[in-house]
Amino acid sequence: MAEADGPHYEPLAPQRAAIVGCGVIGAAWASRLVLSGVEVAISDPSDAAASIMTEVLANAVAAWDDLGLDTTSPGEWRVASSVADAVSGADFIQESVPERPDIKQAVLAEVEAAAPADTVIGSSTSGIKPTDLQAAMVNPERLVVGHPYNPVYLLPVVEVVGGEATPIETIRRAQSIYAGIGMHPVHVRVEIDAFIGDRLLEAVWREALWLVNDGVATTAEIDEVMTYGFGLRWAQMGLFETYRVAGGTGGFRHFLEQFGPTLEWPWTKLMDTPDFTPELVDKIVTQSDAQSGGHDVRELERIRDRNVVGFLKTLEANDWAAGQTVAAQRARQSGR
Amino acid sequence: MAEADGPHYEPLAPQRAAIVGCGVIGAAWASRLVLSGVEVAISDPSDAAASIMTEVLANAVAAWDDLGLDTTSPGEWRVASSVADAVSGADFIQESVPERPDIKQAVLAEVEAAAPADTVIGSSTSGIKPTDLQAAMVNPERLVVGHPYNPVYLLPVVEVVGGEATPIETIRRAQSIYAGIGMHPVHVRVEIDAFIGDRLLEAVWREALWLVNDGVATTAEIDEVMTYGFGLRWAQMGLFETYRVAGGTGGFRHFLEQFGPTLEWPWTKLMDTPDFTPELVDKIVTQSDAQSGGHDVRELERIRDRNVVGFLKTLEANDWAAGQTVAAQRARQSGR
Repeated sequence: MAEADGPHYEPLAPQRAAIVGCGVIGAAWASRLVLSGVEVAISDPSDAAASIMTEVLANAVAAWDDLGLDTTSPGEWRVASSVADAVSGADFIQESVPERPDIKQAVLAEVEAAAPADTVIGSSTSGIKPTDLQAAMVNPERLVVGHPYNPVYLLPVVEVVGGEATPIETIRRAQSIYAGIGMHPVHVRVEIDAFIGDRLLEAVWREALWLVNDGVATTAEIDEVMTYGFGLRWAQMGLFETYRVAGGTGGFRHFLEQFGPTLEWPWTKLMDTPDFTPELVDKIVTQSDAQSGGHDVRELERIRDRNVVGFLKTLEANDWAAGQTVAAQRARQSGR
Repeated sequence: MAEADGPHYEPLAPQRAAIVGCGVIGAAWASRLVLSGVEVAISDPSDAAASIMTEVLANAVAAWDDLGLDTTSPGEWRVASSVADAVSGADFIQESVPERPDIKQAVLAEVEAAAPADTVIGSSTSGIKPTDLQAAMVNPERLVVGHPYNPVYLLPVVEVVGGEATPIETIRRAQSIYAGIGMHPVHVRVEIDAFIGDRLLEAVWREALWLVNDGVATTAEIDEVMTYGFGLRWAQMGLFETYRVAGGTGGFRHFLEQFGPTLEWPWTKLMDTPDFTPELVDKIVTQSDAQSGGHDVRELERIRDRNVVGFLKTLEANDWAAGQTVAAQRARQSGR
């Protein structure tokens, strides 16, 4: 949305979507689509797809109810018998299969064999370049990466990335679809591994692994510094905006010129990653169990959703950031 | 608070505090202390100290009122004529002078010359080791780092770090003081440059600078991916807890074992930092102006505070994370 030339699309939900791959992410996509009134066909090789979808959709309905969005006109959903069954006749397809290029390419071939030739296909990959995904496609021009953040039915952002074979028209069509289901599409204009968000997340992840590996901090201590500290800032202003404000009235340039030199200080161990040994995995799992073992994951999901809904309500009341996306979604719902 | 042996301190606000260095951070410390009923003497070489304090305190009062905390019994504050005037008779001292070891050491010498010998001194440094700060001190055993996050009057976390000469008793006394003014002290048990939070922030900052430097994304696009995405998660669950939940019911170990290999992928440029050239500074400043130039910094501070207050209210209502710190603070206020 921040492109200099402005976005050239109108929000428009699809009529009939296919979800290919129905784990945590696929089911959350399906839930957002269903609650947006879209008919959804799900394809997944696992017998668990229907039960995962049922559980995740229940969480999504609770969250949207809590947020005060209309959940009384959902689209119908079904588990299809095959990829072909799911995608034939679909006017939007979102792929969320495991994060391996070979698996994704094979699934995309199946999708293409049965889908209408001009249907936009979004991939949920958090890091694989769309050029690599579309390399063997018959109609590569309709593929984009549409990288969401979990819980997909609540967090609005989706990074939209085109490959070498993706024209700007497909980017705009994808943005239109994602905005139509209440999301905030950010066009990642330069294709790089891991796009924007996961580059930042990977940087934090590596540093955090070092802190745990070296015994400097536990998973709980790291999480506390985040949630009682800078995490509260980043729900409403990002890195640059926060530092701009921190710079005070002296101006951002002055702040940057002061702050720049600390870049040279030995404040990170980013040059390398710790070996992901069984010992390190044990350490993290043990610490994480101690930190949050009192809640099971489904319970933590509901706690997370209640918290995020509260944040979104605050931001909507203050007409700010993600709250503006919710307000737009609410306005579209009233009109439909 | 997450130490295996549990924290051994009771929250206890000081009676009479000294703030040495009154920029944005020092004034926000002073505001938190004043609103906690503490008498505060401020020392700063600048003539602007009183006006900065007046402005920041006004923001803090508005934020605490909004949060529903009692602001009717503030402590008195004054600008002292010297460091000695500020610290003599103080039972707690917080130092927030510029981030240079030589300046901090010189100021600490002035503080020691006039302060009671057993008064705890907290340093707001975001990265300098306490061992370095206390190297030339007469009573080094009373120095800790107490690293806060802005806005200090709202964000509860403070990283408490001891140097080689700091006994655990001083850590506990500092934790007691910080908890007594409504904060959530996290004891950083191993002394490293930049502690816990700023190591994570520095990792994100470097990566973000590369993205801007290489023209991959603008400051606004980076901030949007954060605030419409993972920033909303980190206000309530940190990195590890978020991934634990993302792993679904398959278990955190399973998730880690799947996720581990992506560490080997070329997803970051962390090996180096971009040169902080005038061109890069220009680029960031220009983009940031375009992003938020419509608001001045004082206005952005008020927007930020309203948002963070809303988040804290949500978390308090849900009895979660930073909301629990606010609830404890509210309970202490009712009892005082």
